[in-house]
Amino acid sequence: MGETYELYYWPGIQGRGEFIRLAFEDAGVPYVDVCRARGGVARMEKLRRGAAPGLAPLAPPFLKVGDFVLAQTAAVLHFLAPRLGLVPEDPRQQLHAHQLQLTIADFIAEAHDTHHPIAVSLYYGDQKREAKRRAVHFRDERLPMFLGYFERALERAGGEHFIGGAHTYVDLSMFQVMSGLAYAFPRRMKSLARRTRRLRALQGRVAARPRIAAYLASERRLPPNEHDLFRHYPELDAA
Amino acid sequence: MGETYELYYWPGIQGRGEFIRLAFEDAGVPYVDVCRARGGVARMEKLRRGAAPGLAPLAPPFLKVGDFVLAQTAAVLHFLAPRLGLVPEDPRQQLHAHQLQLTIADFIAEAHDTHHPIAVSLYYGDQKREAKRRAVHFRDERLPMFLGYFERALERAGGEHFIGGAHTYVDLSMFQVMSGLAYAFPRRMKSLARRTRRLRALQGRVAARPRIAAYLASERRLPPNEHDLFRHYPELDAA
Repeated sequence: MGETYELYYWPGIQGRGEFIRLAFEDAGVPYVDVCRARGGVARMEKLRRGAAPGLAPLAPPFLKVGDFVLAQTAAVLHFLAPRLGLVPEDPRQQLHAHQLQLTIADFIAEAHDTHHPIAVSLYYGDQKREAKRRAVHFRDERLPMFLGYFERALERAGGEHFIGGAHTYVDLSMFQVMSGLAYAFPRRMKSLARRTRRLRALQGRVAARPRIAAYLASERRLPPNEHDLFRHYPELDAA
Repeated sequence: MGETYELYYWPGIQGRGEFIRLAFEDAGVPYVDVCRARGGVARMEKLRRGAAPGLAPLAPPFLKVGDFVLAQTAAVLHFLAPRLGLVPEDPRQQLHAHQLQLTIADFIAEAHDTHHPIAVSLYYGDQKREAKRRAVHFRDERLPMFLGYFERALERAGGEHFIGGAHTYVDLSMFQVMSGLAYAFPRRMKSLARRTRRLRALQGRVAARPRIAAYLASERRLPPNEHDLFRHYPELDAA
């Protein structure tokens, strides 16, 4: 039981925690989604305040294995993936997977800021005007820029997988990004369909993986909602 | 010569490249700052378009060693630090250093967005109203939150160094963050002086390290300016 994987993340959203959940689910490796049980959020807050020895996390998601606590989604995946068989053994391929995951992190932070361009402490309704303005630039400039980069990276890697011709956590993460964008920006994503052919095919292949399909159909997969990273506000979307 | 370290970054700013420059300078390990020589930016653009085998970087800074190209500042430092003697050998301490560097990356992205809350493609002057609104929340909420976290992390680690009681690249990076904030938000940083005592002492110790002091006095250290990540716009600062 010393090697129990405990994931700490907000219980009501997919958010950044979902990238880690998908890795565990795909690998079929047991993990405890701590905050979804009674008292879990209080345990999370204790760890944030420094209840475990060493460096405390600033924010969820974070992982706890024994007394080792590690935060930052991409760092957690970089640590976990070799243990879960979700990245090749070659250290340079692991670094390239990590580079892509960090670029995904940049991308989703920008996607988040379309609905929160002024402050995370304000409601969306209190920054709606700025959100509308930012969303235009996101849809017209940033979204095609990032997706074009990932589409080309996938093409260069052979079209099926991002890293080393093998299924990795980066494929899982890209599935999550594409799902989130399709939920938040359905009109814009439709107009980009031809330019994201490989990414959409990858999304479909990941969704069809038996363990992922079972997970998506389960109650463990939280539905998207307007407290999440990806939010559907029709006024922020356009073809 | 196969192991020459080539750094690719914009030649006129400190920016994110500076975190990598500081690591090389402190270690006293030679590196080529490619874009500061004639034709360097063109070489950088070729690599971004995929001139080297494997994964291409989306954006600078990136490192090239032989034919291995690695992007994302924090990933580059995670790769380089053991080679430069700037992190302990323990893998968990390396992951904690990386976690802190990624939290620094989140922080500086927010600092950047105070002057660019709407779009990187627009001039500051075209998003000044939104910038003023965002800067209030950054100064009053995010800046104390992040600095409070780093101050406590430093205190918990013994007060001198962030990781394992040893000098690491995280100390160098925090020096850069504190320098950038002092330039961009001098009034606010002054009002936070008491709450950032350990961070400011660390900043002073790093600046006094012989190789860093020599670097800061050299022409290799670019002066801060209003094309950089940290910009001084007096209207965005307040006590």
